[in-house]
Amino acid sequence: MDVSFAVSRPRPGLTSGKYPADCPTRTVLTHITSRWGVLVLLALEQGGHRWGELHREIEGISEKMLASTLRTFEADGLVHREAQATIPPRVDYELTPLGREAAERLLPLMDWIADNAEAIVAR
Amino acid sequence: MDVSFAVSRPRPGLTSGKYPADCPTRTVLTHITSRWGVLVLLALEQGGHRWGELHREIEGISEKMLASTLRTFEADGLVHREAQATIPPRVDYELTPLGREAAERLLPLMDWIADNAEAIVAR
Repeated sequence: MDVSFAVSRPRPGLTSGKYPADCPTRTVLTHITSRWGVLVLLALEQGGHRWGELHREIEGISEKMLASTLRTFEADGLVHREAQATIPPRVDYELTPLGREAAERLLPLMDWIADNAEAIVAR
Repeated sequence: MDVSFAVSRPRPGLTSGKYPADCPTRTVLTHITSRWGVLVLLALEQGGHRWGELHREIEGISEKMLASTLRTFEADGLVHREAQATIPPRVDYELTPLGREAAERLLPLMDWIADNAEAIVAR
């Protein structure tokens, strides 16, 4: 799938000369680009993860922040949570189709960051 | 310019099974997707802005956070600051070519958010 950068249509609440604090776009932007939100979406873009896998993979995230980030994405409909009544209990997280759309749109940015981060930090 | 989502090459520090906390990618990711960083990049993607214009346009940003965000981007080489010794003093900010690359890669995500935010928030 290709997405053009040459986007010319207006982006409500984002390019109309104002970035209104009370616009739904601001809320969702804040969720997706939260300190840990991007990393959770990128991890899940690689496939379903168990809780412990996410916690290990996203170095530095606290249990509290992982729980909070996953709860937000679940409420937003971006992440699906599946708990199995096994012993020990097993909880899996995966992107919904909506969440996959969001995560895919982060990839070009992440590739650019991977290509440029060393030069930027070395400045 | 088109950017493919079908990115298959490894993303250092992002898809190798770890998101290392001490990787330059994490630093730059944190700058660009900071609470106000995205909005500053998007505002400047529309063209150069004076300080006061940015402060008005990005509703809710404090002077302190605007100053801090711009300083970070200036140090990263994403934003160019031009101060003119006029009375009153005039300070303009614009994206560097590097900053423009980063901002352009935010646009597909922002368009998706604009298209989906209302439905997500209404859930």
